[in-house]
Amino acid sequence: MAHFEKELERQEVYRGCIFTLTSHRVGLENGGESRRDIVNHHGGACVAALDEEGRVLLVRQYRFGVKEELLELPAGKLEEGEDPAATAARELEEETGYTAASLTKLTELLPTPAYCTERIYLYQAHGLTKGEQRLDRDEFLDVVALPLAEALEMVLAGKVPDAKTQAGILLLARQQGI
Amino acid sequence: MAHFEKELERQEVYRGCIFTLTSHRVGLENGGESRRDIVNHHGGACVAALDEEGRVLLVRQYRFGVKEELLELPAGKLEEGEDPAATAARELEEETGYTAASLTKLTELLPTPAYCTERIYLYQAHGLTKGEQRLDRDEFLDVVALPLAEALEMVLAGKVPDAKTQAGILLLARQQGI
Repeated sequence: MAHFEKELERQEVYRGCIFTLTSHRVGLENGGESRRDIVNHHGGACVAALDEEGRVLLVRQYRFGVKEELLELPAGKLEEGEDPAATAARELEEETGYTAASLTKLTELLPTPAYCTERIYLYQAHGLTKGEQRLDRDEFLDVVALPLAEALEMVLAGKVPDAKTQAGILLLARQQGI
Repeated sequence: MAHFEKELERQEVYRGCIFTLTSHRVGLENGGESRRDIVNHHGGACVAALDEEGRVLLVRQYRFGVKEELLELPAGKLEEGEDPAATAARELEEETGYTAASLTKLTELLPTPAYCTERIYLYQAHGLTKGEQRLDRDEFLDVVALPLAEALEMVLAGKVPDAKTQAGILLLARQQGI
């Protein structure tokens, strides 16, 4: 049986710079009703890249949401209607200085589908060329290049909590047979 | 160098049933200022369980945020201050009918740390005993038990976009040597 919820009413309750928040009255399968609060986000793109020495390129940055510095794969949010591969290539170049000759898609991720529309497009970069980092004026991060085996150990030890980064490292490790 | 952002002002803009939304003025490393909109969520617990035939227990449910039915590991949100292992055990029992003799932690996940405080505690269940599903009155889902190798194939084919479920299946598969 296919499950469903039917939208009965939609109200925008907040318009932020990264997302809008809407509140919905929905009809349920049993004829009842419920409320769903939804974070509406254009989505993000993320890139797993190995440099010439087989090290995975990560960035370390402060995340205000969790009040911690995190190690993450380079990533950024999509502008409305933007091709996610273009976003991934741009973020890789801006955050690490590397340009990629090509990208292939590793997977797509829904980080919190219960209440958020964000979809993250995760790519693998191929054919890297080193260049200069070009951060936004109010972006602060360090590039950390780790041997893939070491990054995998950190994931398995619970030291890389960012979901997209866990997925990217686990998928790259499987692909490389480690 | 440690990166940071300093909170200058905090305003609650919405109080929903699952999360509250706050808007913050923050001080940056270069002396500038920015705004951060944050979804404040108590966190969630999720459980990866193999049944007596080595099949991973998944639930198929409709997710209004992404307007799709998804396959997910059993999971639920923490009440404030609740032990995440207790949440995981309860959700496994309610959603699938199985009780676990013990749980071990697989990892913790931050699904969207840029703008959301949610942390998902991912457990592995051991020593399952079959019982009866006990869903909430307005919860609708089907249990889908898949051989782990098949679930892994689906993850690798991009057919399991839910982030916590991808992580759980990839970690279980690595542990089981497949």
